[in-house]
Parts: sequence; C-alpha cells; structure tokens
Amino acid sequence: MGAETRRNMIQVAVLGYGTVGSGVVEVLERNRAPITQKAGEGLNVKYILDLRDFPGDPYEDKVVHDVDVILEDDEVSVVCETMGGIGAAYQFTRRALERGKSVCTSNKELVAAHGPELIAIARQHQCNYMFEASVAGGIPIIRAINNAMTGEVIEQIDGILNGTTNYILTKMDKEGADFDTVLRKAQEKGYAERNPQADIEGHDARRKVAILASLMMGKTVDADGVYTEGITKITQADIQYAKSAGKTIKLLGSSKREGDCVLAMVAPFLVGKDDPLCMIDGVFNAVCVRSNMLGDSMYYGRGAGKLPTASAVVADVVDCVRHQGRIIPCFWEKEKAPLANLGEIEHRFFLRVKSGAKEAVEAIFPGGRSVCLEGRTEDVGYFTASLKEKDFAERCEILGDTVLSKIRVEE
Amino acid sequence: MGAETRRNMIQVAVLGYGTVGSGVVEVLERNRAPITQKAGEGLNVKYILDLRDFPGDPYEDKVVHDVDVILEDDEVSVVCETMGGIGAAYQFTRRALERGKSVCTSNKELVAAHGPELIAIARQHQCNYMFEASVAGGIPIIRAINNAMTGEVIEQIDGILNGTTNYILTKMDKEGADFDTVLRKAQEKGYAERNPQADIEGHDARRKVAILASLMMGKTVDADGVYTEGITKITQADIQYAKSAGKTIKLLGSSKREGDCVLAMVAPFLVGKDDPLCMIDGVFNAVCVRSNMLGDSMYYGRGAGKLPTASAVVADVVDCVRHQGRIIPCFWEKEKAPLANLGEIEHRFFLRVKSGAKEAVEAIFPGGRSVCLEGRTEDVGYFTASLKEKDFAERCEILGDTVLSKIRVEE
Repeated sequence: MGAETRRNMIQVAVLGYGTVGSGVVEVLERNRAPITQKAGEGLNVKYILDLRDFPGDPYEDKVVHDVDVILEDDEVSVVCETMGGIGAAYQFTRRALERGKSVCTSNKELVAAHGPELIAIARQHQCNYMFEASVAGGIPIIRAINNAMTGEVIEQIDGILNGTTNYILTKMDKEGADFDTVLRKAQEKGYAERNPQADIEGHDARRKVAILASLMMGKTVDADGVYTEGITKITQADIQYAKSAGKTIKLLGSSKREGDCVLAMVAPFLVGKDDPLCMIDGVFNAVCVRSNMLGDSMYYGRGAGKLPTASAVVADVVDCVRHQGRIIPCFWEKEKAPLANLGEIEHRFFLRVKSGAKEAVEAIFPGGRSVCLEGRTEDVGYFTASLKEKDFAERCEILGDTVLSKIRVEE
Repeated sequence: MGAETRRNMIQVAVLGYGTVGSGVVEVLERNRAPITQKAGEGLNVKYILDLRDFPGDPYEDKVVHDVDVILEDDEVSVVCETMGGIGAAYQFTRRALERGKSVCTSNKELVAAHGPELIAIARQHQCNYMFEASVAGGIPIIRAINNAMTGEVIEQIDGILNGTTNYILTKMDKEGADFDTVLRKAQEKGYAERNPQADIEGHDARRKVAILASLMMGKTVDADGVYTEGITKITQADIQYAKSAGKTIKLLGSSKREGDCVLAMVAPFLVGKDDPLCMIDGVFNAVCVRSNMLGDSMYYGRGAGKLPTASAVVADVVDCVRHQGRIIPCFWEKEKAPLANLGEIEHRFFLRVKSGAKEAVEAIFPGGRSVCLEGRTEDVGYFTASLKEKDFAERCEILGDTVLSKIRVEE
C-alpha cells in the first residue's frame, strides 16, 4: 500500500500487543472490506506500542516502544488501549484524549477507576472515550444502554459477567465435580488464569458491575462500594440442594435503583429455571436489563476471548470514525451515586446447616421450607421466607457454626 | 408550556393514534426528563394524525386529519409512522422524507416492501428512515446489526420473531392443549388477533426475516422470496414426540449466507434444549446472530406490545435528534440478494407416520432413529439422518399419506 493511499485512511494505533491488541489487528485485517464499508473510510494500523519486539510478525515494522511517537503523530486519530492496568494505560489514555485522539479500550479496571474523568476529558477535546469491550466482551451492552434504551428508565441490571466463574459453576452443576477439581481443569484449559483470585473472588465482576451501575445512574458507582462475594465457598452439596429445588447457582453481578440510591453487588445466587440467566452456561456471559417501558431484555454472547473482545474494540473504532470531531453521548458524571443500604434489601436465602440444627433453623426463620437430599444425613437445606439482609445476618449468628452455607435466592 | 419554549424544542408528529402511536406519546410523556437528557433537546408532540377525533384525550388538540398540515410545517423535524399498511403510510413517509423530515416507523410491512427506496430517499435529503420497532419490538436488533456488529461479517440470523405463535407453541408444550384450543384462548386474552392468519401462517415473521436478511446482506431480500410455513399443522402429538427427544417446537425465522446467496425461511423447527432459542417462552422474542469474530450472540425481550414497540420508535427519534442533518449509516441497497436454492440445504427431519409405515420410513431414510411414545399405537416418530430438502421431499412422496407430520430439526 502506497503512502498516498495510507494518507487518506484513518490512522489507528494499538497500545499493547497482547491477546486483545493482537485480536484488534486481526479483526481489522480479516474483516477489512466490511469494516471499511461500515466506517465509511479505510482503517490503517500505523503503530503498535509494546515493550517487546515481534520478529517475524507481519506487523513487526509497526511496533514502537515509545508512546510519544504515537501521541505526537497528528495523523493518528484513534487509539486502541488494550494494555490493561491503571498506571501507564491511564497516562497514555489521558494524553491521547488531550490531543484529540479518540481512545477505545477493553480495560475495565481503568474504566471503573477513571471512566467519568476520561469521558469528560474526551468531551473537552471533541473526541471520544469508548469502552464497549470493557464489559461482557463482545456483547454490545454499553451500546444497548447508551444508544438503544434512550427512551427508557433503566431500573435494574443483572448479569453473568465473568466467564471463568460461570464455567466453573456450570461444570460443578453438570458434572458433579467439586470446586477445586473444576478450577484446576479450567486452569489447564486456559479458561482460568494461574492466579485466578480476581475471577473467583468476584473482583473482575465487581468492576463490570460498577461500570454498568454507573451508566444506569449517570453518576459514579465506585467499584470499592460494590458488595462482593466470590464462589470459593460454593460446594457440590450446595449445588445438589439447589438442583433439588429446580435451581442452579450463578455468580450474579447486580445493580438496582432503590429510589435515588443504587444497590450494587456481586454474589452467588440460586437462580430458578424460568430465569433467563439460569440457562447461561460455560464461558458465556449475559446481561439482563429491566427498564420501565420495555420490561426485561437480555443480551447474550461471548464475554471474553481474543476475537470477541477485539471485535467490540473495533466496533468502537468504527463509531469514532463515523463521529469524527463529534461527541458520542455517554452520561456518566464524576458525582457519586449514593449507595443503598444492603442491610435493608430483602431476599429469600438458602441455608445449609448441620442436621442437628434443623429445628433451630426452622424456629429462627419461620415460614421457610426445609429440603432433604436422599441419602444425605450430615446436613439439611433450608429456604427462608423473604427477609432483610441485616435480619438474616443477625439471626444466622444465633445458629453459629452449624451454618455450613448461606446463599441468596434470586426471585 | 409557552410558545417560546416549544419553539426551542424538537417538534415531532405521530401518524396514527392506535396502539403503537399512543404508546409513543405515552413513552415521550412518562420518560420526558431522561429522554430530553439523552436526546440533548426536548421533544414536543406537535401533531397527531388520525382519521378519528379523540374527545377528552389529553392530546385531543394535537389531532389533525390532514397530513399536509404536518408535511408543510417546517418546524416538524421527526415523524413517527405508526399507521401500518403500505398505502397511505408509504405516500406519507416518502413525502416527509422528501421534505427532510426523518421518519421512525414500526411498520414492518412497509419496511419489507419499500425499505431500501425509503432509505435512499432519506439519504438524498439528509435525513433518516429508522425502523428499529419493525422487527422484534423492543429488542434493539437493528441497532445491533447496523451499529454494534460493525467489525463482524454476519453469517446467520435465526429468531423467534412472532410472539403470538410462540405463545401458542409454548402453551401447547407446557399445558398439553391442542392448537385450536390454545389459539382460541390466545384470542380471548388478546395475544392473538381475531383474524390470526398473518401470525399463524408465518407471514408476519416472513417480513421480519426479509428485513433482517436484507441488513445482513446489504441487499434486498424480498419477503415474497422467503420460504414460509406456519404452525397450523403442528399437533400435540408432534410436541410429545419432540419432548421425548429432549426438544421443543419453535417457529423460527432464519436467514443464512450461502456463498453469495442467502437462504431465508420461516418454518417450525424442533429445537434442542441446549439451543438458546429453546427456552424463549410465551410472547417473548429472541434473535440469535452468528458472526465470524464474535460467534453466537443473542438478543431477547418483548417483541410486541404497546410500550416496548413504542420505546423502540422513541429510541429512533432520539437518534434522529442526535444526528440532525447527518445520515445514520444503514447498508441496504435496492439490488436483490440472490436466493439460495432451498432444495440443496441439509437438515435432519422429524417425521410422524402411521404405525404401519414404520419399516417403510426406516428403509427410505436409512441411518435415522425411530421414537415410540408409551401408550401411543396409532403413529410413530422418526428422526432422519441429515439430508437435502429436495431429497427429503422426493422420498416423502413415496410414503404418501402415511406421513402425518414433517418438521425440520434445528442443529
């Protein structure tokens, strides 16, 4: 391709040539013709920023080690930030936006930590900070909220937002294996990282909830304010009790308007068979949105992986090209959204207690329902009536260490 | 509200004050504040066109009977066409677009018949023809295709696109009733029209398939070219055989790239329990998109009803306000997309034949599998191996009137 041709194209830089960054380059390459049509202009990857060299890579000569080469090149109008982290990625993003370069990112950590600030900087400089890929990978949930549901008041967003934990829970449910075994297998297959804490403790989902909740409220929901429980305490016994009640256990990321406040949490829930989130299996993600005119709608697809995530970054790039010099509306102010008091929220709860505590649990949580599993004598399951979180916690204390598991029930 | 204030607002006209049209007015009223925020400007319903008067209606004084009042008022910049039909609606839409007024419609019949022409007229006049509400009601599937999946090549779109037929099939499946009984009940509840032919014979779904297939191809797929079977021949026996094989029967609208051609059809299919479309019950709609980077994604929600459909029209209005004087990309040319030869397509098929024909069907369709239902002696079910439609049809002729049902199997 001659320099003349390239000069008429949109020049793109990719920051970070890892899984997602190389995916962006691959998507742009493989779907070049339709992307050119959709964007209205050709896209050329002019630079790839990485600390490493990539000898033999077809894009070898695009690799630079100094971000200033990119930031100081006025030809570059769109930057894809696929580095991750909130250090260099934050600095580079700020500087790119301040020079009027739109930034499209898959970096949920950065979006959760600095989203509204970066959106505001972009707005000041007539460019855009786009982050479709930061939540639920290839599922266009950010667009659904920002561009599609513009006639709605969104009241609640519940999602299966982490593929690793959903894969583990699905395997536990379908194959009867215990948590540690499934986690080990998931690591072997590359579905879980060698250091899986961010996933299994719910921190990854927590950031995504913070982003979705912020977009729902138009104000900032801090990831730190999102009540978070992971799935490490879920046992095969819990899964069996859930099954016997026609339910399955899912790690849900949930945000809900409560008056002017927002309730935001990540926790395992027992989900019924008629809930659309019940049937989301394996590494798939899904997001359920409840809004005041449309009611429930759901968006389902691959929430992670090189090409699905990269495709979402590319969709953002196309949008930036379609809106050069114009601001794509995104309502997310720095002002904090007040958090609802979790203690006041009502659910039913599932308890698994030592068999000897059956009468005690029935007395302490009247109006509930015991569940016994055939051939299982060491414990008993119990579904409470609906009660406040704070009352539940208080009464559980009375039961002390006879409580083996406690899991919320999604209605 | 004073005249001064109204003059600074976007003036909207609604054509047709029926279910959807009155829904549009209601959504704009009830969600006024968030819609103003999302659109960046206030929206005012200046006119409602209808043949009738609405004495006592709060919008009584907006009602006009002459479309020219609207078309000749330069203040009106967005028109919502919620009349239906392809006569007056077509003329009014053309004339509005020719005057640079964007038109947002829920009229699938008109979009299927004249979509590319109206899109082209809009483009010539720097305005937009928008039709999110024409397919799957409140589900933002048109936006997903046009704005979100811009980094993808879409290969296949399968959907449950008609709520009435899905309600009937769901009731037949869950309650064991037969088609006529369920249809009568659906009519009593208002889920089916008194004249239900357009729904139960698949014509409604056919138009939606034509629209989705056209957007997938960027060329026109005529609704008349979409092979269409309805659900009137589905019996409770078929449902029982499907169940015994772990499947359910759904009316699917399907479009698929076959090289440069497109396969487009509406027909009942046996759908397996692991297909996400299997669990879409009742009046809900869902659309599954398969694309080359993201793989499968699904969009689910209310496909009909006053407020969900109206909300989709309002989202289009907001988009028009955000893009005044600018064209929102939509790739759908008048040129026809060549249709694939249905006869060459391979599926497995389910057959229900008279008991005496069991050996004949096994001989004619080798490699398949018989299914018997306990206590049922008059017929037998049979799943063929995968074979071409034309071969299936040919061999069925040999079986003559021993064939009681034939239904495709979704893989």
